[in-house]
Amino acid sequence: MTPTITAFEQSPDRGQGLARDMRVRWALEEVGQPYDVRLVSFAAMKRPAHLALNPFGQIPTWEEGDLVLFESAAIVFHIAQQHAGLLPDEASARSRAIAWMFAALNTVEPPIVERSMVGILERDEPWYAQRLPAVEQRVRHRLAQLSRRLGDAQWLDGAFSAGDLLMATVLLRARPTGLLDGYPNLCAYLARAEARPGYRRAFAAQLAVFNGTQG
Amino acid sequence: MTPTITAFEQSPDRGQGLARDMRVRWALEEVGQPYDVRLVSFAAMKRPAHLALNPFGQIPTWEEGDLVLFESAAIVFHIAQQHAGLLPDEASARSRAIAWMFAALNTVEPPIVERSMVGILERDEPWYAQRLPAVEQRVRHRLAQLSRRLGDAQWLDGAFSAGDLLMATVLLRARPTGLLDGYPNLCAYLARAEARPGYRRAFAAQLAVFNGTQG
Repeated sequence: MTPTITAFEQSPDRGQGLARDMRVRWALEEVGQPYDVRLVSFAAMKRPAHLALNPFGQIPTWEEGDLVLFESAAIVFHIAQQHAGLLPDEASARSRAIAWMFAALNTVEPPIVERSMVGILERDEPWYAQRLPAVEQRVRHRLAQLSRRLGDAQWLDGAFSAGDLLMATVLLRARPTGLLDGYPNLCAYLARAEARPGYRRAFAAQLAVFNGTQG
Repeated sequence: MTPTITAFEQSPDRGQGLARDMRVRWALEEVGQPYDVRLVSFAAMKRPAHLALNPFGQIPTWEEGDLVLFESAAIVFHIAQQHAGLLPDEASARSRAIAWMFAALNTVEPPIVERSMVGILERDEPWYAQRLPAVEQRVRHRLAQLSRRLGDAQWLDGAFSAGDLLMATVLLRARPTGLLDGYPNLCAYLARAEARPGYRRAFAAQLAVFNGTQG
């Protein structure tokens, strides 16, 4: 049964791949599974029909027969449970890869999202210039720790996993701020992720939506 | 093999159960598994021996034979995979419970942590009074959505799960701000969680550390 995901009708990032449907598209491409996309407007995301799928009024959602899911990482995890290629089979390695999924979302992403939000919501506030350095310092602190752990490795723990997939999408959000530039091994890690055929297909698909050229 | 977790030698919350070892203790109590605790100082958390366990220098960590894990939610998930009682067996219900784990950490927690951090880091800044309302509005937005979805239900999706466990620990962090008071069903949900025998045993154990009375 082909699942249906939701995505922005008009992505605020103009097709740069920062919207969270990208994570799900990429996971599906990595495991070679087809999917349908239903585009939703910002107005539609706040209506009962969409809130029934996701109580927080966000994209992406997942519909597969009777199963409805929300939260991009939970959908990636569901895909990884159903299809080989995103999580190791061996139990300990699998638990460690899942730890990187949570680390990406709960430890590395929050300061990066905070940095983005400051740029969007507080740019015209009188305290912007004074507050920004502290927010950026919190991002650098996490990036430095991540960089130190990654070292010269290709991926975070052995073969590419759903943990790398999520971490790469988190780092993508940091790149426009320039903060990633101080960590060459993280830039190279991100470039390796972006070079994966599955990433490229997913990126092209979401860009085609923005450009109005999707099938 | 009895696992060993790490916890603060001196918890900044003075034993109120807000430190993230509480999640792991509670999960272990729910499934009836014993555990050992190694207390770490703030200085020790920044040293190589601890960074080898958790590259981000946080507690809790998990050591079980050769397996080392970090990220409280990943450890809770690992416990739920090994022992019955924290995730449904049926595949769809299990995926939905996991979605609530990610929703707790990635959608509900970030604005709540931001609110806490503003109170700690920005209380003496000239913009504190002006910025606080916007931060609190972001917390209320998420709490209102969660409250609407929960409705009159006991738990988020059927029986108590690891999703409820994590969501309850996230709501606990919001309670000191008073923002939870506007949502009686969330207060009742949290009270139900705190009344669970497993929660009470875990709370007592972490409080005993703070009081210096642990066995």
